[in-house]
Amino acid sequence: MKQLWQNCHAATMAGGKYSIIEDAAILTDGAKIAWIGPRAEMPLHEVQRSHDLGGAWVTPGLIDCHTHLVFGGDRSGEFEQRLEGVSYAEIAAQGGGIASTVRATREAGEDELLASAVRRARSLLADGVTVLEVKSGYGLDLASERKMLRVTRRLGEALPVTVRATCLAAHALPPEYAGRADDYIELVCREILPALASEGLIDAVDAFCEHLAFSPAQVEKVFQTAQRLGLPVKLHAEQLSSLHGSSLAARYHALSADHLEFMTEEDAIAMATAGTVAVLLPGAFFVLRETQLPPMDALRKHGVAIAVASDLNPGTSPALSLRLMLNMACTAFRLTPEEALAGVTLNAAKALGMGDSYGSLEAGKVADFVAWDIQRPAELAYWLGGDLPKRIIRHAEEVTCG
Amino acid sequence: MKQLWQNCHAATMAGGKYSIIEDAAILTDGAKIAWIGPRAEMPLHEVQRSHDLGGAWVTPGLIDCHTHLVFGGDRSGEFEQRLEGVSYAEIAAQGGGIASTVRATREAGEDELLASAVRRARSLLADGVTVLEVKSGYGLDLASERKMLRVTRRLGEALPVTVRATCLAAHALPPEYAGRADDYIELVCREILPALASEGLIDAVDAFCEHLAFSPAQVEKVFQTAQRLGLPVKLHAEQLSSLHGSSLAARYHALSADHLEFMTEEDAIAMATAGTVAVLLPGAFFVLRETQLPPMDALRKHGVAIAVASDLNPGTSPALSLRLMLNMACTAFRLTPEEALAGVTLNAAKALGMGDSYGSLEAGKVADFVAWDIQRPAELAYWLGGDLPKRIIRHAEEVTCG
Ligand SMILES: [Zn+2]
Ligand SMILES: [Zn+2]
Repeated sequence: MKQLWQNCHAATMAGGKYSIIEDAAILTDGAKIAWIGPRAEMPLHEVQRSHDLGGAWVTPGLIDCHTHLVFGGDRSGEFEQRLEGVSYAEIAAQGGGIASTVRATREAGEDELLASAVRRARSLLADGVTVLEVKSGYGLDLASERKMLRVTRRLGEALPVTVRATCLAAHALPPEYAGRADDYIELVCREILPALASEGLIDAVDAFCEHLAFSPAQVEKVFQTAQRLGLPVKLHAEQLSSLHGSSLAARYHALSADHLEFMTEEDAIAMATAGTVAVLLPGAFFVLRETQLPPMDALRKHGVAIAVASDLNPGTSPALSLRLMLNMACTAFRLTPEEALAGVTLNAAKALGMGDSYGSLEAGKVADFVAWDIQRPAELAYWLGGDLPKRIIRHAEEVTCG
Repeated sequence: MKQLWQNCHAATMAGGKYSIIEDAAILTDGAKIAWIGPRAEMPLHEVQRSHDLGGAWVTPGLIDCHTHLVFGGDRSGEFEQRLEGVSYAEIAAQGGGIASTVRATREAGEDELLASAVRRARSLLADGVTVLEVKSGYGLDLASERKMLRVTRRLGEALPVTVRATCLAAHALPPEYAGRADDYIELVCREILPALASEGLIDAVDAFCEHLAFSPAQVEKVFQTAQRLGLPVKLHAEQLSSLHGSSLAARYHALSADHLEFMTEEDAIAMATAGTVAVLLPGAFFVLRETQLPPMDALRKHGVAIAVASDLNPGTSPALSLRLMLNMACTAFRLTPEEALAGVTLNAAKALGMGDSYGSLEAGKVADFVAWDIQRPAELAYWLGGDLPKRIIRHAEEVTCG
């Protein structure tokens, strides 16, 4: 079906800039954008339907390129205990922290996991998210990682959103492998990744490179396995210390390196050269009350593409809004609103290897967009939390989140 | 009409604590709570309607006791300019900052102001807010302050929310009084407050005590006028420096002193003695990237009631969610989730002088409550932004925010 969408301005985000078209018209053909430009220059077309967007500002659908939104339980009890003065040591002794999420995720049935994931995803979708990534990594054994990834696939069937599944089996050491990290990495490389890849459950492979997780050498084994399986890689790197995981990621042409507070200028150069996207996660920065900012100047100087994501997870970023992350990226990391918006559109698409078909409003791309009832695009980053009136169009169809 | 609400747990917030009732029942009679307690102990009653809350957690309706949500324009353009590197001096030279909001508010028609206020209020209401306060203070002349307060009154008619109007004519010096602060305070005391009070537009009087606003001596004149007019007072105090405005507020038995990052232990003692509520505003703290925390230990030690509010305003806190403020109060100020929830219920009611009839679920109080689809009350503070599924009941009627 051919459709016309008009009476709007567009921040197309082509080239990672606002790339504004005032008084724009968008022609869609099926699920794709056939033409976009100033209404006055629109070629003559027969259309089956015409939509009046009421003077709205249209942006690409938002893309949350880094979430851990499938998990069992939550950690609100622990959140409360910590604020009531219970120490980390006591909470760990109770089996708290990520161990509790791993336990709850292993115990949960697939339908139960799906139901809680749907709830959280709905909140993200209400913000205009049309593509999201979900990582495994709370299963940490073959059956439980498979369960998480199957739930992730089902999420994309249950809701009007395009979902990408990332296998993060190398997220943490499961309790049964305590003191045997190399053995666990071998399990990941010999069994977990090959099996789940063959089942078609994995779109990308991720790992957590940090003193409290896995070493660069261990990460490299995971990356080599991914390479053999023909899967792109990503990396949690430089969140709490500088291990140059982001340079390692660049050597493997990773789609993205994520967190990055402690990265160096050399890492930025490596990432720029490799085309690896820097994914910034201001929610975790806020929750952990971090003070070390990612090196924005180095990222800008070397032209690293910058994305922004929710990192939605039960421990360090229980963030249910991607638009809030725009504000936090601007307020805490000093991104401009334009950079922040590029971070949840074109650069987020690149961080998922989908930059050719998603993330900007250009002819040939998928017709995912949001028509916001705002006066200027900067409002998307300016308002702190809450809801902005909008219409969400996915695959050229208006979405109603129920 | 008598109604029964059951199949729920209640965090009644009686006494400013969770005061949990498991498997609770709530009987309402007209707009009030007739009885609340464990369902097993419910007295026999004829009810016209019975509601199944599906196992939800019920809390009092949320109360946002400090907002500036009526204003002309917004400052998203300035927000963007600053992040793009334009200096404060350049923005001030363009007529930016609060001066731009005063200009836009003076220029806006009453209906236009109402329409934008309704939009912002809707976002707050979607979070479960059933009572909110709105301050004037962008008019700064009689006609414009009147216009703001009239819009505030109309807001309570347009939406299902109880609205309290605070006159904050002593918010900033209007441009036409540059260098003549005492003369402006005289205008406020001789003309603005008496006229608007006689028109029934004022529920409380507020002022901004700070080097960049008004001195303690000037504030005292405003407070004396309020006293003569029989109106309770509130004060913006100790946000950026310590002028002991909170002690001054306590001397005038103020309902609240707000912000308070720089208050001292002596101020806390004065507030506790006077029953003045400490209103904490984590949104402004976040947006301004402040580092000085309010003295939580002194507030707790001396038993000052602590409220939490959005401070929704176009400059320093464009916050559209009160629940986000719960998270920020916990994360940044280290409130416990229970303290934070008391801060947007019972203590917020006290900060508006409404503690006798609002803010907790107790027999005789107004039946404003929210039934949250959550596992424990701490989730209200734990999740960062976004939306939690809920049903909102105001005056014993279910509210639909359209
Ligand atoms: Zn992560
Ligand atoms: Zn204020």
